[in-house]
Amino acid sequence: MAEPDRSHLPTLAVVGATGAVGTVMCDLLSSRKNVWGEIRLIASARSVGKTRMCRGEELTVQALTPEAFDGVDVAMFDVPDDVAVEWAPVAASRGAVVVDNSGAFRMDRDVPLVVPEINPEQLRNRPRNIIANANCTTLAMIVAIAPLHREYGLRELVLASYQAVSGAGQLGVDTLHDQLTKVAGDRLLGSRSGNVRQAVGDDLGPFPAPLALNVVPWAGSLGDAGWSSEELKMRNESRKILGLPDLKVSATCVRVPVVTGHSVAVHAVFGTEVDAEGAREVVRNAPGVILVDDPAAGEFPMPIDAVGTDPSWVGRIRRSIDDPRALDFFITGDNLRKGAALNTAQIAELLAAEFTAGR
Amino acid sequence: MAEPDRSHLPTLAVVGATGAVGTVMCDLLSSRKNVWGEIRLIASARSVGKTRMCRGEELTVQALTPEAFDGVDVAMFDVPDDVAVEWAPVAASRGAVVVDNSGAFRMDRDVPLVVPEINPEQLRNRPRNIIANANCTTLAMIVAIAPLHREYGLRELVLASYQAVSGAGQLGVDTLHDQLTKVAGDRLLGSRSGNVRQAVGDDLGPFPAPLALNVVPWAGSLGDAGWSSEELKMRNESRKILGLPDLKVSATCVRVPVVTGHSVAVHAVFGTEVDAEGAREVVRNAPGVILVDDPAAGEFPMPIDAVGTDPSWVGRIRRSIDDPRALDFFITGDNLRKGAALNTAQIAELLAAEFTAGR
Repeated sequence: MAEPDRSHLPTLAVVGATGAVGTVMCDLLSSRKNVWGEIRLIASARSVGKTRMCRGEELTVQALTPEAFDGVDVAMFDVPDDVAVEWAPVAASRGAVVVDNSGAFRMDRDVPLVVPEINPEQLRNRPRNIIANANCTTLAMIVAIAPLHREYGLRELVLASYQAVSGAGQLGVDTLHDQLTKVAGDRLLGSRSGNVRQAVGDDLGPFPAPLALNVVPWAGSLGDAGWSSEELKMRNESRKILGLPDLKVSATCVRVPVVTGHSVAVHAVFGTEVDAEGAREVVRNAPGVILVDDPAAGEFPMPIDAVGTDPSWVGRIRRSIDDPRALDFFITGDNLRKGAALNTAQIAELLAAEFTAGR
Repeated sequence: MAEPDRSHLPTLAVVGATGAVGTVMCDLLSSRKNVWGEIRLIASARSVGKTRMCRGEELTVQALTPEAFDGVDVAMFDVPDDVAVEWAPVAASRGAVVVDNSGAFRMDRDVPLVVPEINPEQLRNRPRNIIANANCTTLAMIVAIAPLHREYGLRELVLASYQAVSGAGQLGVDTLHDQLTKVAGDRLLGSRSGNVRQAVGDDLGPFPAPLALNVVPWAGSLGDAGWSSEELKMRNESRKILGLPDLKVSATCVRVPVVTGHSVAVHAVFGTEVDAEGAREVVRNAPGVILVDDPAAGEFPMPIDAVGTDPSWVGRIRRSIDDPRALDFFITGDNLRKGAALNTAQIAELLAAEFTAGR
């Protein structure tokens, strides 16, 4: 079979191609409808020369240089904040539209924060030619909350998260498995204070405490007044995506011993009365979400089921007993897919359609 | 050394002495100030004749019969609801005051629901001679919430729990460890939908889904309108203990892969403005709680630290950014101690003081 002619299609760069999210991105590019001409993998010096399978082709990782962006139409970035701050403007200055998954630009007034199911029209408002991707916990949840907001008018969110270790990268996954290997099967370990710490030892990886047989009420860095950066992101990004600058949000972010799949317990207060069956109907018809809500049959959203899938899983929908304007529900989404690579890919595909239409 | 003369001290029966809570109860009776004369261990037929160390004595487990309660002053019950319904009135009719840890009597108007740090005066109001112990998740949390209520006037609670497997008994603990042994070290298992289910197999123990590498948004049985029995207990028991029949409560109960130590993310709305430092001072001075609140130093409440200790650990105290009347915080308590055996022992000791004073 002849090589397909892709010369008329836009060029994509994947920056940070060898990380946890970058790896999922290559999987997604291989499985989704192809809209790209050349795909260029870019990473830091230590990964240069490595190869990755992407869209059936073996691609060689290139170095992060200004010239690497020449001829690139869309550049997807999954790198630490400081790398994004330095290199996203470089890519933009070379003519690429940047879709950035770091936290560096999300609250910049001149950078739209886009979730394609919710606010695709914001894509056009990009004076810096940078578009931001929301953080993984916000993304998993917001696709379910937006349609409920449109139906009932959202006023307040009270959120408690159950965040997977892969949100802290491959090192997080390796750390959890190393710790589990040390504690699994020792039935007394979890029953005395300090025993798990002793068994796990000093290797906490990217976390402030052991994750095996534990939950850690902390994610991110310390912000103002005792809030964690992750909790502040959930508040600020939800407000920006929904276009609700006065939305009341209180979030508590907690890391749990799950590999992939962020969950959130949501208490949402609306401007009008709600009913659970109506809310289920809204979720059933919304894009990017799947309703899993039959507790009698053991069906509710859980990480071991949602991992590796595209939609956010929504269930346990109840009207609050003491507030007819409030709903309680539970959401689980794959933090590496919709929470990162998938939303980035969806944004990039909307941009590809622009380029293709403009040619 | 001569055997101490305990003939003037009241007689205690421990019913359900060989279960997870009963075992912790024997530990507690050995370590706390002794206020008991005879201690009688009682259990179901299959445990009769077994021995248990309690207060330095080797005691033989007796059968659950009406006569077993003859001469008993206080009977602590830790048995399933249906056994409590049948046998607590029998023990009471034989002259014992029953302290019951099941859910059978908690919402009975003629049965006080007592937390010694909060409402010890309710002990006297016991027309059926039965006193109820609250459920483990409510107990872990309510000792921290009650003093904040006295300071600021509680109006509403939004709760999300992180509940340990030992809340479902020893079978829960064994099930989690069996599952962890099957998944620990396999780094790919948690990254594909269904893989963990396949590795774990059909043995889910007392849970509706695997707990290893997962969180399960369900605890208890199905109540009205999609609420779980555990969620309804948190609402109804909090109202009764605090004496606030109109308190608004929304709870989402979630099981996590932790052996022992229930945690709750709390959003509490009060009648007046709050401040985080004032709330910390209230917690610091309250009985039965310990303040652990220094995120910069990695100090926050966690199950691996709180397990095996008496108090509820409280931290992450913040004033809500968008509501000056609301506090967000995180609590962890040992579900087998304050959540069950310890609170029962504390109630029984108050009763022992009554008996001793009355003689």
